[in-house]
Amino acid sequence: MLITSLNNEHIKEILKLKEKKYRDLSNTFLIEGRHLVLEAHREKKIVELILEQDELFPLDVNTLYVSSNVMNKLSNLKTPSNVMAVVEKLDEKPIGEKILILDNIQDPGNLGTIIRSAVAFNFDTIVLSPKTVDLYNPKVVRSTQGMMFHTNIIIREPVSFINELKNEGYKIVGTKVTNGIDVRESKTYSHFALIIGNEGKGMSEELSELCDEYLYIKMNDQCESLNAAVAASILMYEISNK
Amino acid sequence: MLITSLNNEHIKEILKLKEKKYRDLSNTFLIEGRHLVLEAHREKKIVELILEQDELFPLDVNTLYVSSNVMNKLSNLKTPSNVMAVVEKLDEKPIGEKILILDNIQDPGNLGTIIRSAVAFNFDTIVLSPKTVDLYNPKVVRSTQGMMFHTNIIIREPVSFINELKNEGYKIVGTKVTNGIDVRESKTYSHFALIIGNEGKGMSEELSELCDEYLYIKMNDQCESLNAAVAASILMYEISNK
Repeated sequence: MLITSLNNEHIKEILKLKEKKYRDLSNTFLIEGRHLVLEAHREKKIVELILEQDELFPLDVNTLYVSSNVMNKLSNLKTPSNVMAVVEKLDEKPIGEKILILDNIQDPGNLGTIIRSAVAFNFDTIVLSPKTVDLYNPKVVRSTQGMMFHTNIIIREPVSFINELKNEGYKIVGTKVTNGIDVRESKTYSHFALIIGNEGKGMSEELSELCDEYLYIKMNDQCESLNAAVAASILMYEISNK
Repeated sequence: MLITSLNNEHIKEILKLKEKKYRDLSNTFLIEGRHLVLEAHREKKIVELILEQDELFPLDVNTLYVSSNVMNKLSNLKTPSNVMAVVEKLDEKPIGEKILILDNIQDPGNLGTIIRSAVAFNFDTIVLSPKTVDLYNPKVVRSTQGMMFHTNIIIREPVSFINELKNEGYKIVGTKVTNGIDVRESKTYSHFALIIGNEGKGMSEELSELCDEYLYIKMNDQCESLNAAVAASILMYEISNK
């Protein structure tokens, strides 16, 4: 089927997925580009593949062909891809042993980048606080470079979740510039959670009090802090290499 | 002086600084927020401080007061700051011993984040290829978190610059996934340049051939690559800790 009109009802439904409300209602979201579509296909998550007319990208899934004006409208990019898909949201899986907890990360690029690094550095579970930017925001999805399909991402209220982890014997590791341990000198734990705070405000006082230890990254005095995605990535990199 | 009209000629001149062409012509750019303004002031770079009417932020510099409608127009943020400034572009300084070369980094957030990390990890010179995103783009400036005022940033055509460095005895270090050295195992050099390539394409073949050695960051096989700012930051972090 080829759709050429922006007034088509099915296209209107897909366009609604640009809003979080409709992503939540339908339990689906939009992805864009061959790489992401292939990653979603590997996980059997594609509900509908959307191809620009004449595009050759045969996957054995439900496929919709659209004209370039429709593709341009569906796309979130300045230079639209010819390949998009409506995909199912991720399933929750049981929590693992190396957990990353993100407390109110607000920048979509930072969230996607941190998810990509978490997969690179073998963290098996990523916990988002409810106020974290929406995981299915197009810029988050794009920044994960498909890695969101290869990990376990769950949404939890952090204080109660951390208390549960503590009861199960997990070590809770936070970040702090003063009185912390240089991450190069830190110990390793079989079960632990690393907490990364909000970009501007850092970790909340409440979460800070729940930590068993605090790490810092050694840096030049002129620089007060690193970008949140960079700091999270360096901490995960160091921990994964212990 | 208080300016309340968007038609004021002086305001129109300042608004032009949103375009690269006018930043280049005037050799100035716009910054926003108390933190950045204070960092620029420490370096005596402020041409004109712009305060919203009634804002208390007394610096001993040429100051312009504007109404909130003018401030909103000048601002690049959804939630405008009450403090902006027109500042002089950075001066070039002589090159140092630990050089970072960025070859066509395109994302403004990545460039700003890398500059911030370069200061944190003691790189003393940052070289931008001519096709790199404009250093004075508002999102780049914001992402540096003021660190751009504390380092030496120069624009050079990379091939000829690297050849000059080689003649002066600098080691040239690139990145490569295959046949590289794990950055944790790499040697240290008194004079060197680290090259970071474009986000999508990596380092060009031409630059790659000029390298004395190649580094990689050990990661999970599921993940092909890291975000460019994260990769650059981890490499600089490791090198600065040797």
